[in-house]
Amino acid sequence: MPYSLYFNGEILPNETPLLETNDLGLLRGYGMFDYFRTYQGVPFRWDDYWARFANSARSLHLPLPLTQSETADVLTDLYKRAGVAEVAFRFVLTGGYAADSVTVSQPNFLIRCEPLPKDNPTAMREGIKVLPYDYVRDLPEIKTTNYLHMILQAAELKRQGATDLLFHKNGEISELTRSNVFIFKGDTLITPDRNVLNGITRRAMLELAAPHFEIQVRPVLFDEVLHADECFTTSTTKWALPIVQIGDRTIGSGTPGHRTLLMQELFTKLVEAWGR
Amino acid sequence: MPYSLYFNGEILPNETPLLETNDLGLLRGYGMFDYFRTYQGVPFRWDDYWARFANSARSLHLPLPLTQSETADVLTDLYKRAGVAEVAFRFVLTGGYAADSVTVSQPNFLIRCEPLPKDNPTAMREGIKVLPYDYVRDLPEIKTTNYLHMILQAAELKRQGATDLLFHKNGEISELTRSNVFIFKGDTLITPDRNVLNGITRRAMLELAAPHFEIQVRPVLFDEVLHADECFTTSTTKWALPIVQIGDRTIGSGTPGHRTLLMQELFTKLVEAWGR
Repeated sequence: MPYSLYFNGEILPNETPLLETNDLGLLRGYGMFDYFRTYQGVPFRWDDYWARFANSARSLHLPLPLTQSETADVLTDLYKRAGVAEVAFRFVLTGGYAADSVTVSQPNFLIRCEPLPKDNPTAMREGIKVLPYDYVRDLPEIKTTNYLHMILQAAELKRQGATDLLFHKNGEISELTRSNVFIFKGDTLITPDRNVLNGITRRAMLELAAPHFEIQVRPVLFDEVLHADECFTTSTTKWALPIVQIGDRTIGSGTPGHRTLLMQELFTKLVEAWGR
Repeated sequence: MPYSLYFNGEILPNETPLLETNDLGLLRGYGMFDYFRTYQGVPFRWDDYWARFANSARSLHLPLPLTQSETADVLTDLYKRAGVAEVAFRFVLTGGYAADSVTVSQPNFLIRCEPLPKDNPTAMREGIKVLPYDYVRDLPEIKTTNYLHMILQAAELKRQGATDLLFHKNGEISELTRSNVFIFKGDTLITPDRNVLNGITRRAMLELAAPHFEIQVRPVLFDEVLHADECFTTSTTKWALPIVQIGDRTIGSGTPGHRTLLMQELFTKLVEAWGR
């Protein structure tokens, strides 16, 4: 199935060689992105994702080449071309081409329509192991393309049978490489308020949890996580994925807790109803 | 004049659209580079640049697609095609294309032959102003493509009539965005030993200075820089560029000092003799 992309006004197959090599995203890491998916063919919480993308762009002083409505038309076009029930969309906005490899003139705007990553029902049911990692993302509220540590640690993760890194710095946690973190202490749901990306799934979880749990959005100590009753991570593709082990330490009972499973259930209902 | 690039075995004009958009350098900032130039048509200290590049590649677990000798042949070819007396070369090595936007399989190796940046004799003669900036580079010894802050602050630099940022963190300085820093306290030449990229020009300066000055390579406090007699920055394109103002503070007499001018003179002699 030929997934397609939009690049500066053109629609092309995803595999097209198209980027010139003096792009500031490539040469200088001056780029940002966003990533979201459809349910029932309808982009999930598109207004929220667009707002976040526009906000990241503003923070990097990059003008958006398209309006939200023009972009929505592109999404519709790319979705139809893919010819599958559900897709993911990846936005990338870079500083554009620079003859001097420094000066931003005209951003490059890329929208890729991509197949969804494969589900991992075992991980959703049994939970994952993560490794603690002494790091905090630079400019955490901007969804920049800087994911170097995630890839740098890929071999170590594999060696230790772990799925992801849990970032902590000075005794405080922030997030995983690409997803937010929540813990349960009894019936209190807690998630960090700083040094994190404002996840759209994170926000949905907080809304869904509000009628069921007390909620605290505040700095979270690494030590609190180790002694939590339950822990899970949230993202566009992970929903509410249980974390049952951090390094050598088991969290709670070592299996997904019933509160985390309730969050999975509530989120499943939300996305099953999306677009209907 | 048609400057050319090498990309994964092909020689093409620099402006060729050639990169597919799932490259990990573009999407994830998983990339590194190096940059050097010719004097008398001969790459300056090529062995040193290659060693640094190979070392950065190793740190990112990226195999080098070419040997040093194969790469040297590419440089010779690109130099001839440019048809000018002096050129710069930019290496870029990324994690390559990744269907899942995460997993490294085959790195992409790019070598661009580029025109030299224009000389700035006024800055060399009169010195530059830099702005202090609370930051330390992530993985400073690896020449990654992460130069986001440099571009993010471009407008602020312009507004304040400054040329570059001086990174400092917890009272200690490290480097400018793309160059090393030295200070003179009397006849002692001092440069930071940690949180810096091992500049090839930095090393050359230390060698050239050894017969003339006492040398200290050690942690350097921000406060020491403010009270230094002279300050300058070194890089492939900057040689020994005097820094005469940091934010609102004048350094030394506010004009380039005689020791810095001696370093310029020694370096000029070195490169004028290069390749002869």
